[in-house]
Amino acid sequence: MFAAIRRIIGRWSYQIALDQMMAIGLVLVIVSTSKSIGPEAQQIIFIVILFISACIAADFLTQLYRANLRRSSVRYLGSVAGVIDLLSALAIPAGLLIVREARDVNLFGLVWTLRYVRDDSGLILFWRVIERSQKALLSLASVFILVFLSGATLAYFFERNVQPEVFGSVPSAMWWAIVTLTTTGYGDAIPVTIWGRLLSGWVMIGGIVMFSLQAGVIATAFAEELKRRHFLHTWDLVGAVSFFQGLGAAATADIVRLLHSRDVAANTVIVSAGEPGDAMYFIVSGEVAVQLLPTPIVLGSGQFFGEMALLFGTPRSADVVATKPSVLLVLDIADFRDLAGRRPEIVNAIETEGARRRAENVALHRG
Amino acid sequence: MFAAIRRIIGRWSYQIALDQMMAIGLVLVIVSTSKSIGPEAQQIIFIVILFISACIAADFLTQLYRANLRRSSVRYLGSVAGVIDLLSALAIPAGLLIVREARDVNLFGLVWTLRYVRDDSGLILFWRVIERSQKALLSLASVFILVFLSGATLAYFFERNVQPEVFGSVPSAMWWAIVTLTTTGYGDAIPVTIWGRLLSGWVMIGGIVMFSLQAGVIATAFAEELKRRHFLHTWDLVGAVSFFQGLGAAATADIVRLLHSRDVAANTVIVSAGEPGDAMYFIVSGEVAVQLLPTPIVLGSGQFFGEMALLFGTPRSADVVATKPSVLLVLDIADFRDLAGRRPEIVNAIETEGARRRAENVALHRG
Amino acid sequence: MFAAIRRIIGRWSYQIALDQMMAIGLVLVIVSTSKSIGPEAQQIIFIVILFISACIAADFLTQLYRANLRRSSVRYLGSVAGVIDLLSALAIPAGLLIVREARDVNLFGLVWTLRYVRDDSGLILFWRVIERSQKALLSLASVFILVFLSGATLAYFFERNVQPEVFGSVPSAMWWAIVTLTTTGYGDAIPVTIWGRLLSGWVMIGGIVMFSLQAGVIATAFAEELKRRHFLHTWDLVGAVSFFQGLGAAATADIVRLLHSRDVAANTVIVSAGEPGDAMYFIVSGEVAVQLLPTPIVLGSGQFFGEMALLFGTPRSADVVATKPSVLLVLDIADFRDLAGRRPEIVNAIETEGARRRAENVALHRG
Amino acid sequence: MFAAIRRIIGRWSYQIALDQMMAIGLVLVIVSTSKSIGPEAQQIIFIVILFISACIAADFLTQLYRANLRRSSVRYLGSVAGVIDLLSALAIPAGLLIVREARDVNLFGLVWTLRYVRDDSGLILFWRVIERSQKALLSLASVFILVFLSGATLAYFFERNVQPEVFGSVPSAMWWAIVTLTTTGYGDAIPVTIWGRLLSGWVMIGGIVMFSLQAGVIATAFAEELKRRHFLHTWDLVGAVSFFQGLGAAATADIVRLLHSRDVAANTVIVSAGEPGDAMYFIVSGEVAVQLLPTPIVLGSGQFFGEMALLFGTPRSADVVATKPSVLLVLDIADFRDLAGRRPEIVNAIETEGARRRAENVALHRG
Repeated sequence: MFAAIRRIIGRWSYQIALDQMMAIGLVLVIVSTSKSIGPEAQQIIFIVILFISACIAADFLTQLYRANLRRSSVRYLGSVAGVIDLLSALAIPAGLLIVREARDVNLFGLVWTLRYVRDDSGLILFWRVIERSQKALLSLASVFILVFLSGATLAYFFERNVQPEVFGSVPSAMWWAIVTLTTTGYGDAIPVTIWGRLLSGWVMIGGIVMFSLQAGVIATAFAEELKRRHFLHTWDLVGAVSFFQGLGAAATADIVRLLHSRDVAANTVIVSAGEPGDAMYFIVSGEVAVQLLPTPIVLGSGQFFGEMALLFGTPRSADVVATKPSVLLVLDIADFRDLAGRRPEIVNAIETEGARRRAENVALHRG
Repeated sequence: MFAAIRRIIGRWSYQIALDQMMAIGLVLVIVSTSKSIGPEAQQIIFIVILFISACIAADFLTQLYRANLRRSSVRYLGSVAGVIDLLSALAIPAGLLIVREARDVNLFGLVWTLRYVRDDSGLILFWRVIERSQKALLSLASVFILVFLSGATLAYFFERNVQPEVFGSVPSAMWWAIVTLTTTGYGDAIPVTIWGRLLSGWVMIGGIVMFSLQAGVIATAFAEELKRRHFLHTWDLVGAVSFFQGLGAAATADIVRLLHSRDVAANTVIVSAGEPGDAMYFIVSGEVAVQLLPTPIVLGSGQFFGEMALLFGTPRSADVVATKPSVLLVLDIADFRDLAGRRPEIVNAIETEGARRRAENVALHRG
Repeated sequence: MFAAIRRIIGRWSYQIALDQMMAIGLVLVIVSTSKSIGPEAQQIIFIVILFISACIAADFLTQLYRANLRRSSVRYLGSVAGVIDLLSALAIPAGLLIVREARDVNLFGLVWTLRYVRDDSGLILFWRVIERSQKALLSLASVFILVFLSGATLAYFFERNVQPEVFGSVPSAMWWAIVTLTTTGYGDAIPVTIWGRLLSGWVMIGGIVMFSLQAGVIATAFAEELKRRHFLHTWDLVGAVSFFQGLGAAATADIVRLLHSRDVAANTVIVSAGEPGDAMYFIVSGEVAVQLLPTPIVLGSGQFFGEMALLFGTPRSADVVATKPSVLLVLDIADFRDLAGRRPEIVNAIETEGARRRAENVALHRG
Repeated sequence: MFAAIRRIIGRWSYQIALDQMMAIGLVLVIVSTSKSIGPEAQQIIFIVILFISACIAADFLTQLYRANLRRSSVRYLGSVAGVIDLLSALAIPAGLLIVREARDVNLFGLVWTLRYVRDDSGLILFWRVIERSQKALLSLASVFILVFLSGATLAYFFERNVQPEVFGSVPSAMWWAIVTLTTTGYGDAIPVTIWGRLLSGWVMIGGIVMFSLQAGVIATAFAEELKRRHFLHTWDLVGAVSFFQGLGAAATADIVRLLHSRDVAANTVIVSAGEPGDAMYFIVSGEVAVQLLPTPIVLGSGQFFGEMALLFGTPRSADVVATKPSVLLVLDIADFRDLAGRRPEIVNAIETEGARRRAENVALHRG
């Protein structure tokens, strides 16, 4: 808890201050559209928005200046981040030129939300997923359009005489069709004829089937992309752990699938004495201390701990605390047992290395 | 059926009586908010609630006293169970201090529901799943917020002049946006302009896609966590069966994935003579009797039965009844055949051991 | 097309006539509740229903008599089918005793729908799936109840003063809660306060997440159960094909996963000359004729065809027509290639056997 | 961007012109049903529709004539494409015969949408998926009908006295049942009795469970079918790459699963110098140039590039540009590493071949 707060403060910087100001600004923009906000409050909000806009513009110029020092200003302006920074800086000035009312000028501040997703991998991930599954999605889209158009046209045929104001034209019936296909069902366009209702039933079921197929396609592609990212990220971390460097490519590819990375702040208790052991840890970077008496054992990058509890099913024998901010690779007990079955040589190596280290430590303590 | 009832009665205890009283209390609390309940009924309910609250407080003090005897009272108070017990005991007294009306005091009794999930692994499982998939969920959340904010703002632009009372501010439009993104569609905020309707269609489809991605991420993590738990649980049970102890780590990890555990009460008929055999059973603990003539064969912990029907495709040759409450590991016929393909040595061992036991039994019966 | 019609007629029997009468009866029952049906039509419907009920009773007695001849009448009455037959026979008589109006008596005929699912594996499958995944579903149910109760209670708190007629008690608010959690959104109970709306948003999202988790759990269990059934069904069919009998258990388990069964009526064209080959076929039972000149080659149970197109990528060399109703096992081209990688010995055996058969046929034709 | 436009123009043809005319026609048909379109505009639209209809008829006759030249006119008329072409040509003439109002004649033009899905594999895919999973879907359908009928009948019982105009007959209650089962919730039929509301809750939950099971079944079958198509498509492409021809069937089946195909237009930059390498490429057809100094190296069909960055983790050493429209097979870095583990011989062959080619190039440049 304290570590988390310390970490947050530690990361605090000029960029984060800007992000927080923008967040306040966005809340103010949204609030300012409310009618219960009086003209004085509106004025104050407007001034705050102008101030934040100035800060964003200053940030853009600073970044551009820095990029210029690195002779990469063109590259910065051409990058996604650069374009978003420029748009954010120009949003309020553009608003001032285009619209008159202060309330509407504020709304241009919503462009700032783009700055939050600028460095976020979410959108890129999303885009890659859509791109990957585009063939299947296009197939589904053609079926969707067929169902949508024929549904709307049939509803127009069935209902136009009974409800001319709601189903009086195909575009009107399309509104009913989309609301029904997505099973939203606002209730402003409801078939009343027997044929219209039979059609509705099929359109609802068809919508559920089509959207769940679409969802299935996207979710599968999303899961594959997440797995791919995890594989590449863990592969890089595994390369940094000396213990794994002796393994061949096959064993590495195998173990990479089983490991998960975990970032811990300094002074985090990773393992508590007496608890049942449910995982072992490999240190990618940083440093941990095994709290043994008389002196704790310090383990650094490339070493591992917590294997005893997995090998012998005993509770944790000592606390393990991170002495520096560390990156760990975690091997869960279920995956450890799985690994013991498929790659006994790795588990043997862990056992041997662990025994050697313990013998060494005993010698050290005696010496 | 009878066994089930006997089991339920067998488990009946002071704790269960309290759980049942709490259930009655909660129903009364909910009912008491209804206007059709007259003042006398209200008073009776209030007294019942006070009585149940006193019982819960007594239970808390008993638990605390017991914990104190074990010198673990601090640990108990610090645990999740302890905090929930304390809150449940204090709920109605706190209500008496804060609000005046008896009906509102009753509502504080809803805190008791926490006691039901105190020992339940559902919430912990849920939490672990959210934690595991948090990176992907955060990515999706950023996309969600972008769509939500831009949808609400655009709807505000398109509809504010036509429907100023419903879309008159961005916060109002946000209500429409969330009702539409989740495809709930209450129907109190419905776009009427052509642009507003086009936007609606995209917001609905976007909502379905985003929520199904989110659902896919959580459901996958949930399935993995369930599989992990099943693996660890079955592993422990397999370790208790002597037949499996000769197997190496690889074969064990393999077979653990195929087995399912099943708890049976005493006198349960596990296998009926004449039925087709669809599974074989390993006894983890307890005792079963194979109803052969002249004397039944009693099998105990570590032994197995039902393999004949799988090996030779014959119907069950005899009833098998649990004589004590037993824990069994079930190997389905489909998995048995799969195992026969991948690990013939295990199936051979089952065959040999089964033949040996049958020969022994014949000798016993003769002797 | 003709084959399909012939098949349907061929299967027509006394049982099917009863099923069709019941279907007509059920439609009449539903129609008879409509107010546009005059008293005379009602009377006619009532007489038809009575007649069908008599037929169902006669069928029950016939079945009972037949079971009695086999000395299994007690077993029949105790079985699911027997109970459903009895209930169907007694439905209308019971209705005559209990209610007065003919229209309401008819409604008892809806019990007949049970006869349609009597032999259907759908419900059994459904039941097994729920049973298998009950631990996970119970965990989710406890979370669901917590969210449902706390949602309803909070909505009651937030909205009771503003909308006393809709949110005036917790049971009333529960109606809103279930309509919102399932994202149905009828629109008869809509929060209007700011807190009520914030709560709504969370309840909607919570509902989507919980139901998709639940759906994920059930769908996964359903898929596993379907796979298990397919495995067992195909295994039995594979056992009937002589070609596969030489394979070991490992290869059998492997190939069973790749095969799909297909029932064809007599005179069905299975393979058309000149088409690209996308599958090969093993004959479980029945007979097919390869339409070669001068005389067609007749293949029977245990033989296979269509492998040439897969082995050499050539189009089909001849039509293959089923001369009797046949059961085939289909090996798709994608799975064939997969098999060629993992189990070259099977593909080699197919190649050798095919070459041998062709040589034989040439010899036959020459001779 | 330019390449894409050039490609679109390059593909432009008489067929595409017809497709575009039809698209305009369909938009006009939909618009023409709107009441804001005056009689003159209607007349113009009508004439445009007639013109497009004439073009479609001309196209049909042209195709028929061409087919006749190839002596396949009967085959063309019997094919799906032929039937759709004929229907499209006859739609408007049929409309002129059947209905009187020009606006309604236009609606027959909606038959033209079929021409868009004529060559689309989406519908065929959809059909195959439904066919494959029909057993499971029929099981679910029987459960669905049971729930639907019993839900509607019970709602009729509970609500008919309170809301005779909405729940006054079973067919009326069926409308409520389908709207509730699909969680559409229009809000025109809402139970008000306590039993009706309890029933509603179960119907909603039952609907979600059944539709997600159905969705799960279809989505799984869809994913399998897509995988099968991808396998067959990639298999054919792999057969065209000389490098893979030395591999055995097992290795081929393995690598086919890891590869993805990509079509690139001429002048597309496939790989940019300095970027991190995330994939390697095999050329199926076409030609690419590795932009090395002094002269670029030209690679043709059967060769590969981009393996250096994967083998040594270095950034791309040179731009690679497609000099002709090319079809590539892409091997992602994650899959490459996976392959290195499971099939080291393939990665070794890539390494050796790459080294040989580089040595050759150096010799060429020196010479």
